[in-house]
Amino acid sequence: MAKENKISMEHGAGGQQMQSLIGNIILKNFTNTKAGSVGLEALDDGATIAFDRAFIAENKNAELVMTTDSHVVKPIFFPGGDIGKVAVCGAINDLAVMGARPLAVSSGMIIPEGFSIADLEKVVHSMNDALTEVGVPLITGDTKTVEGTALDSIMINIAAIGICDAPVRDCGLRLGDKIIISGFIADHGMALLTKREGFEFSSDLESDTAPLWKMIEPILSIQAAPGERAVTAMKDPTRGGVADALNEMAQKSKVGIRIYEEKLPIREAVVTSCEMLGLDPLEIANEGKAVIGVRPECAEAVLALLKQNTYGKDAAIIGEVVEEKPGKVILVSELGSTRYVDVPTGDPIPRVC
Amino acid sequence: MAKENKISMEHGAGGQQMQSLIGNIILKNFTNTKAGSVGLEALDDGATIAFDRAFIAENKNAELVMTTDSHVVKPIFFPGGDIGKVAVCGAINDLAVMGARPLAVSSGMIIPEGFSIADLEKVVHSMNDALTEVGVPLITGDTKTVEGTALDSIMINIAAIGICDAPVRDCGLRLGDKIIISGFIADHGMALLTKREGFEFSSDLESDTAPLWKMIEPILSIQAAPGERAVTAMKDPTRGGVADALNEMAQKSKVGIRIYEEKLPIREAVVTSCEMLGLDPLEIANEGKAVIGVRPECAEAVLALLKQNTYGKDAAIIGEVVEEKPGKVILVSELGSTRYVDVPTGDPIPRVC
Repeated sequence: MAKENKISMEHGAGGQQMQSLIGNIILKNFTNTKAGSVGLEALDDGATIAFDRAFIAENKNAELVMTTDSHVVKPIFFPGGDIGKVAVCGAINDLAVMGARPLAVSSGMIIPEGFSIADLEKVVHSMNDALTEVGVPLITGDTKTVEGTALDSIMINIAAIGICDAPVRDCGLRLGDKIIISGFIADHGMALLTKREGFEFSSDLESDTAPLWKMIEPILSIQAAPGERAVTAMKDPTRGGVADALNEMAQKSKVGIRIYEEKLPIREAVVTSCEMLGLDPLEIANEGKAVIGVRPECAEAVLALLKQNTYGKDAAIIGEVVEEKPGKVILVSELGSTRYVDVPTGDPIPRVC
Repeated sequence: MAKENKISMEHGAGGQQMQSLIGNIILKNFTNTKAGSVGLEALDDGATIAFDRAFIAENKNAELVMTTDSHVVKPIFFPGGDIGKVAVCGAINDLAVMGARPLAVSSGMIIPEGFSIADLEKVVHSMNDALTEVGVPLITGDTKTVEGTALDSIMINIAAIGICDAPVRDCGLRLGDKIIISGFIADHGMALLTKREGFEFSSDLESDTAPLWKMIEPILSIQAAPGERAVTAMKDPTRGGVADALNEMAQKSKVGIRIYEEKLPIREAVVTSCEMLGLDPLEIANEGKAVIGVRPECAEAVLALLKQNTYGKDAAIIGEVVEEKPGKVILVSELGSTRYVDVPTGDPIPRVC
């Protein structure tokens, strides 16, 4: 009987066993599967997404936004989430920080022979929960199995399609903009590291993995002037952490960014464990945060709106865009000294997203 | 020096090394990277696709089509193609058999530590060649690296977005329809098996991997009656081969399909090697073929159009849709005996797509 509870090569073979896996595990557990006339349950070669004709007609610059993310998280279950939740949230958040309302996602799973079917079902439940939270259908998918010697765990790709009136860019920062972070940093990477290595000193840390669209949608409507959005630039600080996100925004926007150590929301447990391990929390991955550039006169309004959402309740203004050192990020310490926040050269904690 | 020519974990870390890999290998080698205001070179959190407003306005039922496919091909280089070509063609063809013009694709790569950077560049070249052939931009991507112990070779996910006036379905077959296959069957699976196992008796076999949109686009315009498309159903017979594709079409359309052995285009080398290995060519994967249901009065016209395209020059009418045995596929042998073509229970040749 044990054999029946594990993935076998036949499950990915495009025949009867695969149809049963897809029917019993995938189809049964996704509750929202249509965005047009052809949905997931049709198991056709793809699925369709109807056009929002009213939105397209009203917004002359409206575009689709597409994003993709492959996830190789280890371990696949961790405090605060699992690979399924991270995969869905990663894609939804990439759309959200582009200012795009998510329309649909696809799922590409690669599963090693011997993988537990019960674990697969848990992962699928998590994917569905995250999608349900933001009302996004999973409309099409692909499932491959490979030999257990070829792959050590499940890998999930999520591609996502959204729609925006005008995309929010990395490169849109302007002098004087305030920089907001939507909550505590480095929780995701540190929770995974803690779980993986079995550290006891930070065992209550939880990943921040969350789908941010409902937090971000309201702030997109705030205008600094008629027709001028208050939000000028946005990124989700995943791999490479806040350090990488801020550097990209500074480089692409050709401005300097100054941030203040005392204003950074960091949990005490993260500070402690980073110190013990010699890690910089600014370089650690997040999966439920946004770094946001905002016109200064709207910063408090944006902050107040963010704080109304569960995922933004610890949001803070952490710095501003400055003329000095374009392309660089400067950290002002609590004692007033300054240093550059560099682009991370490597990954302090691999396989967290 | 050797170390520099291999992928290391830092290449996937979201920092400087990753930026250099993406700049030098990915960005440099994709020549068409924009479908809207934000393209691949922006390296933003996603990319945009402009709306074809004229097409949407003219076609009241127009929809987007989305598809995704993860590729785990072994070996990654084989006669007639490589994993990059298969990945792109697989996605383009899934759109094509839905009747959708491809608008853009995304790429999600997972690369094991130690993978050759020269091989990566070859794969990327193949992806670009296939995309160029059909004029489709690659607009966004994600690259992850994992430990060499975690994964035995590169894996590529391609998601694709297209647009159609009305999707062509698996379930659209009608009584009397002719069934067309666009060329020789089983070449892809047999070419990979031959290469992988080092069989000498079929060493001149080449994969049929090809992007089929330009072959399929013209036949979509043929009408059986005003407003009634001649093509009623379409599938690309990849995993599970023609046997799986026909069974799905028969089951979903609730009709019987009768095909004639003597009409099946199969190369002599494929027949011989399948016989030697005890394989059924109907169950072997193709990566450049379409199975097409067509209103009978238009079958010759569709066939003639297919034959004008390189990839359709060996197309043939192989059978028809019948009332008997709904949901079943019946093969009539050269001697006139009949048998069911079953849904394959497993995969005779794993990891071919």
